[in-house]
Amino acid sequence: MRILFLGDLVGRSGRDAAGAAIPVLRDRLSLDLVVVNAENASHGFGLAPEMARALFTAGADVLTLGNHAWDRKEIFSYIETEPRLIRPLNYPPGTPGKGSFVAVLGDGRRALVVQAMGRLFMDALDDPFRGVQAAIASHRMGTGGTVQAILVDFHAEASSEKLAMGHSFDGKVSLVVGTHTHTPSADHQILVGGTGYMTDAGMCGDYDSVIGMQKGGAALRFWKKVPGEKLAPAEGEATVCGVFLETDDATGLATRIEPVRMGGRLSQVMPSR
Amino acid sequence: MRILFLGDLVGRSGRDAAGAAIPVLRDRLSLDLVVVNAENASHGFGLAPEMARALFTAGADVLTLGNHAWDRKEIFSYIETEPRLIRPLNYPPGTPGKGSFVAVLGDGRRALVVQAMGRLFMDALDDPFRGVQAAIASHRMGTGGTVQAILVDFHAEASSEKLAMGHSFDGKVSLVVGTHTHTPSADHQILVGGTGYMTDAGMCGDYDSVIGMQKGGAALRFWKKVPGEKLAPAEGEATVCGVFLETDDATGLATRIEPVRMGGRLSQVMPSR
Amino acid sequence: MRILFLGDLVGRSGRDAAGAAIPVLRDRLSLDLVVVNAENASHGFGLAPEMARALFTAGADVLTLGNHAWDRKEIFSYIETEPRLIRPLNYPPGTPGKGSFVAVLGDGRRALVVQAMGRLFMDALDDPFRGVQAAIASHRMGTGGTVQAILVDFHAEASSEKLAMGHSFDGKVSLVVGTHTHTPSADHQILVGGTGYMTDAGMCGDYDSVIGMQKGGAALRFWKKVPGEKLAPAEGEATVCGVFLETDDATGLATRIEPVRMGGRLSQVMPSR
Amino acid sequence: MRILFLGDLVGRSGRDAAGAAIPVLRDRLSLDLVVVNAENASHGFGLAPEMARALFTAGADVLTLGNHAWDRKEIFSYIETEPRLIRPLNYPPGTPGKGSFVAVLGDGRRALVVQAMGRLFMDALDDPFRGVQAAIASHRMGTGGTVQAILVDFHAEASSEKLAMGHSFDGKVSLVVGTHTHTPSADHQILVGGTGYMTDAGMCGDYDSVIGMQKGGAALRFWKKVPGEKLAPAEGEATVCGVFLETDDATGLATRIEPVRMGGRLSQVMPSR
Ligand SMILES: [Fe+2]
Ligand SMILES: [Fe+2]
Ligand SMILES: [Fe+2]
Ligand SMILES: [Fe+2]
Ligand SMILES: [Fe+2]
Ligand SMILES: [Fe+2]
Ligand SMILES: [Fe+2]
Ligand SMILES: [Fe+2]
Repeated sequence: MRILFLGDLVGRSGRDAAGAAIPVLRDRLSLDLVVVNAENASHGFGLAPEMARALFTAGADVLTLGNHAWDRKEIFSYIETEPRLIRPLNYPPGTPGKGSFVAVLGDGRRALVVQAMGRLFMDALDDPFRGVQAAIASHRMGTGGTVQAILVDFHAEASSEKLAMGHSFDGKVSLVVGTHTHTPSADHQILVGGTGYMTDAGMCGDYDSVIGMQKGGAALRFWKKVPGEKLAPAEGEATVCGVFLETDDATGLATRIEPVRMGGRLSQVMPSR
Repeated sequence: MRILFLGDLVGRSGRDAAGAAIPVLRDRLSLDLVVVNAENASHGFGLAPEMARALFTAGADVLTLGNHAWDRKEIFSYIETEPRLIRPLNYPPGTPGKGSFVAVLGDGRRALVVQAMGRLFMDALDDPFRGVQAAIASHRMGTGGTVQAILVDFHAEASSEKLAMGHSFDGKVSLVVGTHTHTPSADHQILVGGTGYMTDAGMCGDYDSVIGMQKGGAALRFWKKVPGEKLAPAEGEATVCGVFLETDDATGLATRIEPVRMGGRLSQVMPSR
Repeated sequence: MRILFLGDLVGRSGRDAAGAAIPVLRDRLSLDLVVVNAENASHGFGLAPEMARALFTAGADVLTLGNHAWDRKEIFSYIETEPRLIRPLNYPPGTPGKGSFVAVLGDGRRALVVQAMGRLFMDALDDPFRGVQAAIASHRMGTGGTVQAILVDFHAEASSEKLAMGHSFDGKVSLVVGTHTHTPSADHQILVGGTGYMTDAGMCGDYDSVIGMQKGGAALRFWKKVPGEKLAPAEGEATVCGVFLETDDATGLATRIEPVRMGGRLSQVMPSR
Repeated sequence: MRILFLGDLVGRSGRDAAGAAIPVLRDRLSLDLVVVNAENASHGFGLAPEMARALFTAGADVLTLGNHAWDRKEIFSYIETEPRLIRPLNYPPGTPGKGSFVAVLGDGRRALVVQAMGRLFMDALDDPFRGVQAAIASHRMGTGGTVQAILVDFHAEASSEKLAMGHSFDGKVSLVVGTHTHTPSADHQILVGGTGYMTDAGMCGDYDSVIGMQKGGAALRFWKKVPGEKLAPAEGEATVCGVFLETDDATGLATRIEPVRMGGRLSQVMPSR
């Protein structure tokens, strides 16, 4: 299966760039599945339903969220009606929406997409490790399994927690990719058990910024400790950041993992076809 | 000036790989200056004086530390006698050692190397932003200045704080490079004011691990909340990770920034000569 | 039921004072049940089995622990054999020991004792609120119920989380008492639903100290950011701190709550008989 | 000198109760000086200038703030014109207002009031310990000194940091009293060097609440991890909480320290005259 995962879309710049890039990349990389983290699509804070719809129209198959899931209030009802939009599975029972979704490809192949949120330096949710374990427990990957691939978006701050997630499910899922830091990591690899791994997919946003927000005000927050102006997303050209994964349908494991960086200020990388 | 900065050396694997790589890279990249973060050189925790000496012998000009600075007790006296070894400048007054050093090249050019430590998700030190401002206040870069280059190692957890540091001193220093996450970022760029920037240099260590430590025990720490075995560094082949920077001596600003990843599991990148 | 709860015993000073006070208070206050938090009994860090035995001998019915539960390694096997020693219930599955115990009084009355640990400013355990809810779900208090009283030791840092626990179970348990800050609060009250509440029971230890540890070294840790000497418990005369609760066996609810402070430097308070 | 310090006023309930109590207590306890923490006076968030004026009119001599200092925007200009209103001294240079004030009594005696903010589990400000040291450096207490008393409001979360502050300045100031947890501690004492100490003065507010805010919504925040309704202050009768200190003008040291709790749900305590 040929899969693209794009990191946190930030604001209009990130939305526009990702919206334009998805059809191009679907075609160029013969993608079977596109998953996009959209927690910062709406001015950096949350996701509006119309933005989700536009991303589905552009070719995203599944959208994930994160700690900014609830910044736009419309999401509470929308997420109940749209199973392709998931939020971290380790929110407590009773939280709107679900933490996983099985995408069915046109040819009948299936992929389980799961999102969990880290706890180190973050809010105290339920255990993301046992959460992922439970979410994949009823699935087997590969020939004769219930799905051909399992993707885990681990929305977390600490590199240690992300690597622990990768190794914990190495050989049991196709991909563990981190989101949330808005910084692409260069440590993509296939772990020894066959799982594709990358600490952070990076953001789709303007990198002349502080994690997507206008740099002046955002930097000032570290100098001054009195509340400043509201942060606003930077509006320069975005770099579309993510990771391309190829898996073996017979095992669900990764055969190839490569970063994608397109447009904007960062160094450009595009997987060969 | 042609500069190499290597991220946190972890354990024997990282030390050996960096020790072997430095002479090779000095030659291949015609390096003028080599700076190495060595806070995890000693089994992942601290730096022993003999390891520092070996790194200087291998060709390192300046060594930096971080939150693990004091894990090896011998460092308290050694750092007072070895100015080429620096620790974060924003430790309180009375802390052994210094937070900056002016390296003088064989041809008389000079480079100020500064280290500061972040506070977001970390210990409450003095303000690193005002600290860096003070450390560079008496210097001017470029022709007729006091130094030809200024390098800032910002040892910090959060990508937002690191980017805030980069933008705060954009145009005033040659390089702001992050350390501490042990994960190389792929966001190296020359900021609009001319400062080279990279969120994290990554570690020199075995990437089949949890930030350099053996993956089994380290991953288990996120599953179990009772104390486990002592963590030990992973001992597979290290990837030497860092960043290569070229600066204009007339201005001190960056003209080229490229990542370095050599050996081990990560994708390989080497600047052209 | 007449109940005494004593806060965190710190070191020899706290152990000796509590050991001497328990028989005196059992007699003077005609106590039916004595519960003691003992997580810091062993030099401030953990609890040795022989210290637990001595406390049971002195008249403690149930011992609770906290984040220092595992500091003494002997506890791992001991807690499996001694059900009267409990640890926070919201450790993950597989953790040694249990988080609750039903004490049976000589006259056949029964009291459920439960411990949970907070997450605000503390480690990321399972949800303590749902944990307490589950632990008490199979019990009903009062006449015809399964127990006559339910006591919750909420080992937590933040006053907000402790009050949230108190109000969440107001009317459903006899007592919510906090531990961990080592500082007795003066806010003991019977909540509107009938549950006795006190934000922190305080420690049994020497109050000429920093939360029980020798003040010189402990205070220095806030001035210096390099590792200092190992902390050692202060050895002056302890104040035995805790709370006395009287409940109505017919409802399980509190009819009277009063602090206890005996010996040492703090102001002295003793409930009338 | 006879001094009253009142802890964080929360909302209308706290303001009204403190406003009514101050004149009564001034008279009853023959007070020379009244200091009030007012960071939560405005609906729990910040302080409006007219509320500050009303408190001065009621008999407060000095007002202190805390992490909620800037919640009401009018405070930025007001604090520059009203030296009797202070904020934590360890905000970075350039922050509006000052962190200390010398109150001059009608009979010419003088008292230095200082506020600092803790860093453990709080925002990364400048070092509060060196900050207090610097603020008192130019003063000497007692006969022939510059002031007769020095009061430190240490606005902090952790009991350990507060005790460290107390012991660090024991013998050098008249009082170290904590604020911020909104929970009165029962550990008031005169430290061995003569400084009055109390970990937290408690709040002036309705104690049928979660630290002053309506208990339903505030408790729910620990059960649900999606944003809920805005918190609002509880409106039941407040308990006025604080501490009464008597000092020796010849030395500045404490001769007597007693808690005050008046009205509302908590146990009532009033110093004898
Ligand atoms: Fe996020
Ligand atoms: Fe994000
Ligand atoms: Fe570090
Ligand atoms: Fe490191
Ligand atoms: Fe404790
Ligand atoms: Fe504790
Ligand atoms: Fe407050
Ligand atoms: Fe506060």
